[in-house]
Formats: sequence, structure tokens, C-alpha cells
Amino acid sequence: MSGLASLDSVQTAASILRAPTPPAWVEQAVRSWPQLLLDHANCEKKAASTALALMFTYPEDRALTLALSRVAREELRHFEQVVRAMNTLGIAFARQRPGRYAQQLRGALRSADPGRKVDLLLMSALIEARSAERFALVGPRLPAPLARLYAELMSAEGRHFALYLGFACSAAPGEWRARLTALAEREAWLATAPDRTLRFHSGPLQPES
Amino acid sequence: MSGLASLDSVQTAASILRAPTPPAWVEQAVRSWPQLLLDHANCEKKAASTALALMFTYPEDRALTLALSRVAREELRHFEQVVRAMNTLGIAFARQRPGRYAQQLRGALRSADPGRKVDLLLMSALIEARSAERFALVGPRLPAPLARLYAELMSAEGRHFALYLGFACSAAPGEWRARLTALAEREAWLATAPDRTLRFHSGPLQPES
Repeated sequence: MSGLASLDSVQTAASILRAPTPPAWVEQAVRSWPQLLLDHANCEKKAASTALALMFTYPEDRALTLALSRVAREELRHFEQVVRAMNTLGIAFARQRPGRYAQQLRGALRSADPGRKVDLLLMSALIEARSAERFALVGPRLPAPLARLYAELMSAEGRHFALYLGFACSAAPGEWRARLTALAEREAWLATAPDRTLRFHSGPLQPES
Repeated sequence: MSGLASLDSVQTAASILRAPTPPAWVEQAVRSWPQLLLDHANCEKKAASTALALMFTYPEDRALTLALSRVAREELRHFEQVVRAMNTLGIAFARQRPGRYAQQLRGALRSADPGRKVDLLLMSALIEARSAERFALVGPRLPAPLARLYAELMSAEGRHFALYLGFACSAAPGEWRARLTALAEREAWLATAPDRTLRFHSGPLQPES
């Protein structure tokens, strides 16, 4: 993919988000980046796991399954890149309490097919879009090796966003737009409202009372 | 990896199996190969999923996690290769009832750590060893494009076997050998005793009564 096409998909990804990431989150994230790398590694692992889960749920959709397998491989390669960056920076492993984002976004999906498939694809599209937006905001503020890595990841997330959105459009041509709007509202609240833990997809930390 | 090293790891893999695959299974498999491809695609997907599950269970073991991520990527690439072969051969999707092999092998594992980790690694080593043995038996009997694919997969499974076994040895230097013997007995029974369904890891079909 050319640099221009990649930039386009990142811009398109950002354009479906219903609210931009608050500047307070960006400042907190840049200050705490070493700690956020741990969460970032988890996000890449979870993105691979989500793609694989879709492969098990919809095995009859061979085109989707093949595309998801490639997405999962790319997310795993990102995981390895982030873990190697953690090794280089001397960041030790620690178990982290999950944030609210993925769980509460998942709670907004329909539970039965055919609606569930469309919602799962749109959820993944939104997560990729938010990831691309945040890599673009934080990457240039980080030291050179991480800045380069994040530029690469941003472009990949933009591509994954377009892929998930394309499959959602095909699965429900008459419906995806309304569902995207509804889920994007929820996503925007989760990514912008004050949050109790700082995570890659969280809102900004709420002030201590 | 050189051809010689790859052959070595396949031979070592086969040498830990407690019983060779029965000739009856090989004959049935060669006759029914198009149907078995479907099961084979599932096996690659499940192998990726098993590696990913280990990554989630033991995130503190960074060396293991990195190695498993690469294994999962390779299994996913195999999945894509097998699905493309199915497309070429015009094999339609069908849901398949799972065989007894994985479920009953998993039933023999210890349920609590530290024993469970060793058992999970040894189970994966055994499955990779059986896969390598069967690819070597069936591959040369299949048409050229599949025969080439299976030669490549056989070598990968041999490497994965060595990798899983190496991590099991490191995790429990004093214990792995006894556990391997116990689990290999179970595995050999599952792969050789007459079975109700023909699968990539099944025993030969039992004669109809």
C-alpha cells in the first residue's frame, strides 16, 4: 500500500469516530508511555484473539476467514514488536486490571445473528479507527524507535479498519450505517469520558477527588 | 533451517510417539483426502488458537510468549494455504463434528499449575509430532500441489514439536520425561484405536458392525 493510500485510510478511520481523543488523554499517555506499552502489547494480543474468534464463529464465510487470518498474523507481529520494544526499554511484566473500553463496547452489541456479525465487524472497525487516531497523536511525541514503530502500526490499523468496515457493509448493506452511528456514539463516550484507569483506549484519568 | 535439520526434527518428533499410525488409517486417509482437508484446515486454526491461549495464560513468560506468537502466525499461514487448496479443489465448507483426539488428550492434563503448564506444552509437542508423522505418511501419496504443501508443513510441525518440547524441559527439568511418557501413552491409544469418525488425528475407522 502506498503512503498516500495508507494516509487516506487513517483519515477515513478517524472520520468515523464521533469524538476526537481529548488532549488531556494525550498528555497523560505521553507522560506514562512506558506503562502504556504493557497495555498496548495486550491490545495487539487481544486484536489477534478477536480476529481468531470471528474465524471460529463464521467458518462458512471463507473470504472473511482468510482476511481475518491475515489480520491476526499482522496483530501478532505487532505484539512481538511491542514486546521487543519493552525488552529494550527494560519494562517488566505486570498483570493489569482490564479497562472499561472493550467490555462496555462489547456490551452494546446484539446477541443474535445476523445482527451480531455486523456488530462484531463494526466494533472491530471502531477499535482499529481509535487505535489509528491515537497512534497518530502519540507517536510523534515519543522517542525515535517508538515513533517509527507507531507510524507503521497506524498505517496497519487504518487498513484493518477499512477491511472490517468493508465486510460489515457487505454483510448488511441497508443497515450498517445506522448501526455504526449507534456503536460509534458508545465508543466515543468510552474513549472520552473521565476514566478510573489510564489505558490505550481509555478516557483521560478523572481528577482525584 | 536446512533440509537436514528439518528432517532430523521430524525424525525426533516421530521417535517420541509410543505407536506408529496404523496402515489402515493411512489407506483411509489417502482415499478420503478431500474430506480430510476440511479437518486439516480446522486443525491449523485450532493450533493457532492453542498457542494464543497459552500466551494469555502465561503472559509473564516473555520468551515463551514471543515464541508462541511466531508459532501462531505460522499455523495461521498454513490455515490460509490449506483453505486456498480447498478453493482450488472446489471443496465446499461443511461443519464437522469434532473427533475424540484433542478433547480426550486434554482430559489427561493436570488441572493446576505448575503441572498444567508442562502438560499443555507436552500435549502440543505430541500433537505436532503426530502431525509431522502423518504428513510424512500421506503427503507422498497425494497429487503434486498437496504433496509439496505437506512436505513444507511436515518440516514446520517438526520445528514446532522441538520448540514445545524445549519449553517443557526448561519448565520442569526433573519431571518432563515421566509426564511425556504418560501423555504419549494416551496419545498413542487415541491415534491408533478404532474410531467412529475419520479425522486427521483419529484412529482408523472401526469396521461397521
